[in-house]
Amino acid sequence: MGLAEAGAGAAQFQRARLLVGALTQAGVRRAVTSPGSRSTPLVLAALDAAAAGLDVASIIDERAAGFFALGQARATGVPTVLICTSGTAPAHYLPAMMEAREAGVPLIALTADRPIELMDCAAPQTTDQTKLFGSFVNHFAEVDLAGPVDPLSLRAIRRTAAQAVFRSRWPRPAAVHLNARARKPLEPEVGAGDGSLAAAVDALLREPIEAAVPASRPDPAALAQAAALCRQAKRGLIVAGALPLPPPARGAAADAYGLAELARRTGFPLLAEATSQSRFVEGSAAGEASCRADCLGAAWAADGGNALPVPDLILQVGAPPVSAGTQRLLEACGAPRVVVSDGPWTDPAGLASVFLPGDVVATVAGLRSRLEAVPGESAGDGWRRDVLALTSRFREGAASDGAESGDRGLHDGDAARAAVEATPTGGLLMLGNSLPVRLVEDWAGKVERRVWVASQRGLSGVDGLVAGFLGSLSTGGFPAGVLLLGDVSLLHDLDGLAIAPEYADGPPAAVVVIDNQGGRIFDRLPIAKADVFRGPAGRHWSTPHGVDFGGLARAFGVPCVRVEDATALAREIGAALGRRGVSLIVATVDPGALDAAEESLRRAMRAAVSAR
Amino acid sequence: MGLAEAGAGAAQFQRARLLVGALTQAGVRRAVTSPGSRSTPLVLAALDAAAAGLDVASIIDERAAGFFALGQARATGVPTVLICTSGTAPAHYLPAMMEAREAGVPLIALTADRPIELMDCAAPQTTDQTKLFGSFVNHFAEVDLAGPVDPLSLRAIRRTAAQAVFRSRWPRPAAVHLNARARKPLEPEVGAGDGSLAAAVDALLREPIEAAVPASRPDPAALAQAAALCRQAKRGLIVAGALPLPPPARGAAADAYGLAELARRTGFPLLAEATSQSRFVEGSAAGEASCRADCLGAAWAADGGNALPVPDLILQVGAPPVSAGTQRLLEACGAPRVVVSDGPWTDPAGLASVFLPGDVVATVAGLRSRLEAVPGESAGDGWRRDVLALTSRFREGAASDGAESGDRGLHDGDAARAAVEATPTGGLLMLGNSLPVRLVEDWAGKVERRVWVASQRGLSGVDGLVAGFLGSLSTGGFPAGVLLLGDVSLLHDLDGLAIAPEYADGPPAAVVVIDNQGGRIFDRLPIAKADVFRGPAGRHWSTPHGVDFGGLARAFGVPCVRVEDATALAREIGAALGRRGVSLIVATVDPGALDAAEESLRRAMRAAVSAR
Repeated sequence: MGLAEAGAGAAQFQRARLLVGALTQAGVRRAVTSPGSRSTPLVLAALDAAAAGLDVASIIDERAAGFFALGQARATGVPTVLICTSGTAPAHYLPAMMEAREAGVPLIALTADRPIELMDCAAPQTTDQTKLFGSFVNHFAEVDLAGPVDPLSLRAIRRTAAQAVFRSRWPRPAAVHLNARARKPLEPEVGAGDGSLAAAVDALLREPIEAAVPASRPDPAALAQAAALCRQAKRGLIVAGALPLPPPARGAAADAYGLAELARRTGFPLLAEATSQSRFVEGSAAGEASCRADCLGAAWAADGGNALPVPDLILQVGAPPVSAGTQRLLEACGAPRVVVSDGPWTDPAGLASVFLPGDVVATVAGLRSRLEAVPGESAGDGWRRDVLALTSRFREGAASDGAESGDRGLHDGDAARAAVEATPTGGLLMLGNSLPVRLVEDWAGKVERRVWVASQRGLSGVDGLVAGFLGSLSTGGFPAGVLLLGDVSLLHDLDGLAIAPEYADGPPAAVVVIDNQGGRIFDRLPIAKADVFRGPAGRHWSTPHGVDFGGLARAFGVPCVRVEDATALAREIGAALGRRGVSLIVATVDPGALDAAEESLRRAMRAAVSAR
Repeated sequence: MGLAEAGAGAAQFQRARLLVGALTQAGVRRAVTSPGSRSTPLVLAALDAAAAGLDVASIIDERAAGFFALGQARATGVPTVLICTSGTAPAHYLPAMMEAREAGVPLIALTADRPIELMDCAAPQTTDQTKLFGSFVNHFAEVDLAGPVDPLSLRAIRRTAAQAVFRSRWPRPAAVHLNARARKPLEPEVGAGDGSLAAAVDALLREPIEAAVPASRPDPAALAQAAALCRQAKRGLIVAGALPLPPPARGAAADAYGLAELARRTGFPLLAEATSQSRFVEGSAAGEASCRADCLGAAWAADGGNALPVPDLILQVGAPPVSAGTQRLLEACGAPRVVVSDGPWTDPAGLASVFLPGDVVATVAGLRSRLEAVPGESAGDGWRRDVLALTSRFREGAASDGAESGDRGLHDGDAARAAVEATPTGGLLMLGNSLPVRLVEDWAGKVERRVWVASQRGLSGVDGLVAGFLGSLSTGGFPAGVLLLGDVSLLHDLDGLAIAPEYADGPPAAVVVIDNQGGRIFDRLPIAKADVFRGPAGRHWSTPHGVDFGGLARAFGVPCVRVEDATALAREIGAALGRRGVSLIVATVDPGALDAAEESLRRAMRAAVSAR
């Protein structure tokens, strides 16, 4: 510090201001800081950019900050910039960075680092942060905040910022890591310098910079080939798995990805999973309704695969489906597949005949334009009618189970149904992995209004769900939101729950936790049959806990209520959606009730088939 | 799954059993699992190895699991094996893995992965885990659990396990990553196979395997050079920073690193920081006592550097000191330095004349043997007397402040003193970073019994302190422990607090949190002088919170009490140390009281100097 030139802190702040200002100018609208000292110039710069419209949140735990930012970017399509200090601090971003890559969400981690002269000499909080996130980022760049202030150097900072925003979205959205070295003094000296550097930075920040991401259009020949397969098919089926929230979520059309229109055009039933943004849509036109086969997988499995022949063409859009029934149906049919994907090679079964990567909306539109509308009665009509009959029967069975639910204890499926039904029009429904995302497939009723569905299906972790949910809602893009998750997921994101005080003024956020004392997904896996699972060692899988969720919630100022029947559950979600900030609703479910309900549904389905 | 050979699950389990069994045979004693499905063969194998003495804990959140395991390995010197599923799960280990590298703690992450055929096709929870921890591990290896079962392949698994244990300790302890791919079925089929594979694995597990880590002895010529510098010095000073807990902590000698003996031999005062394992030691012999200058840095700073000439030789052992006073003293003197280190280049100031890396005990012993005992009165006697007079005066000042503490509110220094005084003989004191580790330097009284001191000074993060503390205590190496940490650190390790139910039967663990409403370390940094810090934006640094720690603790079944004076604090730590499992003591400190106490101490010191 003795050797620092007078005004070195001020110059460093100006370079930080240029970096964060240029990020803002290139489109970034939100920043999330976590506390630290080395990051001081970056935090000061973010606060400075707040005047230019940058929203700056503060979250203690970088892991929660990472998932919160991921949730924001998932909802907006615009990268949020994460700012933290050096050492282990950035390491806590890794889970969110990995999810960002797999899920195609843009993100920028701007990590403070110590200068070169403090490397490798046991200086505190100093380690090798270079390429810390390995291959999980689209781009890594070093920024020397204490570097020179000549015109080219300043333009290089501005370019680095614009590049970071661009690379967070290209070739497919993912995270970018900027590692910014800062030197003491970390604060600008009062009255240092003659203001000419500040003026130069201001001038640069007035110059517009835009790096437009080129559109990724499907190959015409491959489109034609896919269209030919569709024309030949007698029993085609469109299966839509997880697809991103279309940015901005709120302004999108009812048929966000054009899948309902594609179903009409091809005559193929549309099996739209909840996370496809194509299942919970506004009151459908008559023609559209006749193509909806939302819970076909569950119905097919419940019925034992007896009522229907298998499809002869699968048109898969987005991620592979999560419903166990749908997976079994696809495994059973082995039909050729046309796979439409926004980037990842979404074909774990290796059955793709035509793989169409690129912008999904453009691909679906391209395919549609190559197919003529089905004129009146057509070859696939019988197939479509059978599919719709099966799914209606399944839905009626599930609904009649629901009608009785006042008379019995809750099961997990009730919680899923209640969560979907409570989410208001244009609201956000976020689904935890393991059971919740699957429960919604089977148990959600017919919902004829737009509900946006977020999930972390990139890597399907149980981590960061509360933080990600609050991040998405914090963008103001949704009137309110409901998060449905399991107890183990909630316990894995205590740091997410700890955001609640910071989020107190946010849109209503109802967190519905299914308390079934541990990870009950394991009851449905082969390990459940092993002796070891049924003994005390079973806790290594199902991890039962004795945590008092009510006490936990209250510690963070979160209203919490425990419910044990469907009526109370609906009432309490409604109450939560009537107040700002986070509320926790603990749905205590009967162990075994879900199995019983499923079994009764299966019996009803089979009886209906044999009665025909 | 249809193509799996009959018994493929059983064969996979046998290979997993060989891997975990061989880890156990090579010295591993503890495993920590987190829930997941892909890790099933590994968890089954760990449960199998429990019969051979492997202790297997279950922790939901991999981040807490990582720090818990780090704490175990820190206490024992033996790597704990971490077992988790695929996807983002292993990413949560990264912070603990980074700390392990910098702090020199062995650790083994055994992560389940999906087989090659599921890579790059959007299969769930599947990503590229290869070299996930980059350069932060000593060694990375792939294990194919579903691989062949011929004799060489089986021996390769056994070798990989032994190698992992070896590389976790060589050339310097750090983490090792084993990435184990498993294929469905993940469970062994009942009654599959004829038992010959199991018998072959049993036979291999009976063959002893030991990979001895070679000792790292200092270079004799460099030792001679260092000894010559010591002989020439008139005002030498031994400064001992953080040093590892000597494994096994419980059995070590009073003078764990031989520093007291080195001080006697050289006649240099010994400034032993709390984390050096050389400050809180058994009732010292007369000769030894005369060399102790524990709080010299604080005393020197309080006095303004007037009472003493600066040292003319620094003999630095372990990590660079954390006390701000000691750092200033070292900066002021610019004397040549002999630096003794267990590996890292511990010389951030770049002032080392002789750098002696290697086994610290051996290096100190080698140095001692090259120096004759100081015979009676010697050249350095006046210097030593002056140093000891200054530190005694400082200690008296600090103690008299303590005597009055019943009459006033608590300050942070009181909490530090109480934590040290309450820790029983042979007990573990764990210190949070930022303020606590520094508070103990200045405010801890003279404690003449063995207290082991753990810290995470590798990267000095605020993360994982509760988990690490409970991990260390869970080894049974200490009768009880006290953790002193700040409120921000506690909020950064909610997942660590969530371990409490699993730890309920563990040795008494008193967690003392200094509740000063946020990170008060920033009040002591230059940013505190900025306008922005004093306004609402100051929360981006100090992160004040409104969390009810009592409610939080109760949610996890942890007794909690809030105290506001020193008497109550001492009483409550005592009560906590009288019961098994975790207790939380929230010490509410007066804002500004620490500053006032330090100022009064400084005034007293200066008055004493001018009165001379």
